[in-house]
Amino acid sequence: MTDPAAVLEALRLELGDAVVTDPARLEAARGDKSGHRSDAPPLAIVDARSIEDVQATMRIATRTRTPVVTRGAGTGLAGAALATTGEIVLSTLAMDRVIEIDEDDLLAVVQPGILNGRFNDLLGERGLWFAPDPASRAISTVGGNIATGAGGLLCAKYGVTRDAVLGLTVVLSDGRVIRTGHRSVKGVTGLDLTALMVGSEGLLGIVVEAIVRIRRRIEGTVATIASYFPDAASAARAASAVSAAGVQPAVMELMDARSLAAVDALLGTTMGAAGAAHLVVQTDGPAAASEASSALAIIESFGGTAELTTDPAEGERLLAVRRAMHPAMERLGTTLIEDVSVPRSALPAMFAAIADVERRFGVTIPTVAHAGDGNLHPNFIFDGDVVPDHIWEAADALFTAALALGGTLTGEHGIGILKRRWLQDELGADQVDLQRGIKAVFDPLGILNPGKVFPPAE
Amino acid sequence: MTDPAAVLEALRLELGDAVVTDPARLEAARGDKSGHRSDAPPLAIVDARSIEDVQATMRIATRTRTPVVTRGAGTGLAGAALATTGEIVLSTLAMDRVIEIDEDDLLAVVQPGILNGRFNDLLGERGLWFAPDPASRAISTVGGNIATGAGGLLCAKYGVTRDAVLGLTVVLSDGRVIRTGHRSVKGVTGLDLTALMVGSEGLLGIVVEAIVRIRRRIEGTVATIASYFPDAASAARAASAVSAAGVQPAVMELMDARSLAAVDALLGTTMGAAGAAHLVVQTDGPAAASEASSALAIIESFGGTAELTTDPAEGERLLAVRRAMHPAMERLGTTLIEDVSVPRSALPAMFAAIADVERRFGVTIPTVAHAGDGNLHPNFIFDGDVVPDHIWEAADALFTAALALGGTLTGEHGIGILKRRWLQDELGADQVDLQRGIKAVFDPLGILNPGKVFPPAE
Repeated sequence: MTDPAAVLEALRLELGDAVVTDPARLEAARGDKSGHRSDAPPLAIVDARSIEDVQATMRIATRTRTPVVTRGAGTGLAGAALATTGEIVLSTLAMDRVIEIDEDDLLAVVQPGILNGRFNDLLGERGLWFAPDPASRAISTVGGNIATGAGGLLCAKYGVTRDAVLGLTVVLSDGRVIRTGHRSVKGVTGLDLTALMVGSEGLLGIVVEAIVRIRRRIEGTVATIASYFPDAASAARAASAVSAAGVQPAVMELMDARSLAAVDALLGTTMGAAGAAHLVVQTDGPAAASEASSALAIIESFGGTAELTTDPAEGERLLAVRRAMHPAMERLGTTLIEDVSVPRSALPAMFAAIADVERRFGVTIPTVAHAGDGNLHPNFIFDGDVVPDHIWEAADALFTAALALGGTLTGEHGIGILKRRWLQDELGADQVDLQRGIKAVFDPLGILNPGKVFPPAE
Repeated sequence: MTDPAAVLEALRLELGDAVVTDPARLEAARGDKSGHRSDAPPLAIVDARSIEDVQATMRIATRTRTPVVTRGAGTGLAGAALATTGEIVLSTLAMDRVIEIDEDDLLAVVQPGILNGRFNDLLGERGLWFAPDPASRAISTVGGNIATGAGGLLCAKYGVTRDAVLGLTVVLSDGRVIRTGHRSVKGVTGLDLTALMVGSEGLLGIVVEAIVRIRRRIEGTVATIASYFPDAASAARAASAVSAAGVQPAVMELMDARSLAAVDALLGTTMGAAGAAHLVVQTDGPAAASEASSALAIIESFGGTAELTTDPAEGERLLAVRRAMHPAMERLGTTLIEDVSVPRSALPAMFAAIADVERRFGVTIPTVAHAGDGNLHPNFIFDGDVVPDHIWEAADALFTAALALGGTLTGEHGIGILKRRWLQDELGADQVDLQRGIKAVFDPLGILNPGKVFPPAE
């Protein structure tokens, strides 16, 4: 590796003002929304303004063998964008334009730095929307969605991020550019590198432009049901029954008692007084009313106390509660947020497993779930930057339970550094070797986000 | 490479009766439904009955450096499963069981050899279905769908094959087994090898089991509109206008005059007398009736003569006409079936480009289109096994036009051998190099379907 001062000089020579070494900015690039931090600040941040800036950065990085961490808004929850000593942070946050909205073909071409919420505001002016809908939509970028495969609240009905990405422009580790995919609905020319890039967490290249599918606004009534249950297990059983009955909610979110208490503390609400678990179901589209009525009957038959509203503002208020979950957790301490995903029918079993882990390890684990798709976010809370051993052990027990139920380590946050220790448990050694091989094809020098996803070699 | 007789002996020793050298079977493995044939029959066929049989075959192939062509029902249209001298054909057609149907989680676990039609019959008994719906459903396998990324008639509304595959069990080139993906709706652990396998045309490994998404039967009316237009261009404009108006047909199929004549000749129908282009639109779901009524008005405003039926049998009869297209083409001679896909709004421009190619090269190109997703199948017909030069030239002009419209070489058939000469035109040299690199990670000896997809090295 070249001397850091020489790297910095080369960057400044080529990129001028785009190169930032302001200590506050460098400090911020040590962390993300998981609350975890790297051990030291990076060398510099490049605020890329164009594809050419990204190419120039990667050419210098390749020439000087300098590691590069691509970063958007820094809202990740797995530590995938943490940067440390000697690393260049390649920020795509300033590349935030919507280049094209094609209403006839229902696609948009965007730069990676556009915020999800902002993108949806622009689309909304034309009666359109973008389905991937992370709870962090107001502060997270579309590029971050693509890098992590972030999903959100609407995946069960409207698909995961991979389904919404048609094509990508990618800068490779040596500065060359490739264009994957197409503007058509279908396309199977060669290996599907577009899908391979989605969720690749900065390991393979830098997404500098994306062709994404957009949708026409769903017309008609939106029905929202808010319900309370005596415990999370019964709410989970009701949620599974709603899905099994053939109702397809746009949103179905479950919050347990500890989550309700945390959100109450943040927002000054009193949900915790109404019950020990909360299930919100939202239906949309032509069958919204009949689906809501079926869901309501099922919820009540499982012991839920429910009310149904078709008022849009009231419905949005009920979802705002769910979106407040992460800020509420941040107030409690540092969080190790899990992101296990299990088959929908295993949701009650997963809640039982969480309760069991709480008992065995003497920890409390506030949990919310995207109940429509079986994705749970159990939150381990602790003080300080370092995850205590007993928390790792409890998390380990919880992952093991999710895998045993046919699930996965991470539904939508990615592996980053926080889950890499379990990667091989899920994938097996042979598959990890293949993945490392693919990484080496894209990044032969190992300069793209080193140390992330794959455990360090022993 | 080991002596062929020794390879055969090793296969027989380990796999016994599963090894077939019947000349008629070997002869059949030279071709597929494109009508193209390899220059000579392969060494042997292994009728694999289990994952262990596939593993044993691949261990022998690795040890002896023998090429392996994985093959299902042989209904491919790009020559991806043609086998030649010295190659082992690994047939997964006998691995045809549905291992599990999970109605609560809406997934099924299947072996690759199950026919699409048979799978849908079994699902239909429980009120379920599998969305990928190639026109060849009665004779093609689910494994073939996955290997080619085959789509079919319903992709615009119900997704492409990649969207329907949750996880795969794959035998690697040396006989090891990996399990990719998961049973949950979401999952982003590591690189998405499940998506990478879909459409990989036998280059990376052998799919021996798949976890696929299934759906509940769509209840309610199915409305079908059959319409005739004076020419294909006006039918294409009407189809684009239907999509642009926000109607989302389950099926929207366009056949030109030459296609109608060929199907008339096969089925004894008289569609050609009614008009020079035929557009079938089918709507389903809760909005079926209102969507059909909107589509009908648009079709008539574009000069179409239309009738609407809500009778299921009549609707199915109208689609059977479309499904007869390929057998109708087979009667005319050997076919080079193109499979270009363009953005929906470019459909009229693509039909104009096809007419231009017909004029310039003095060829006739019967064309059908999945008009809902912009996927066209122009058919070049000729005599004999060898594509004449002027057909290649005409095909070349047609591909160039599709790429210029933002489209792709192949929407759902794959590259095989018939389109490999254009691979680099679409992907560019840098992306082809990356794809070759990925291939080498999975298949370091180059024994998996050599010569397919990538043009032979010069």
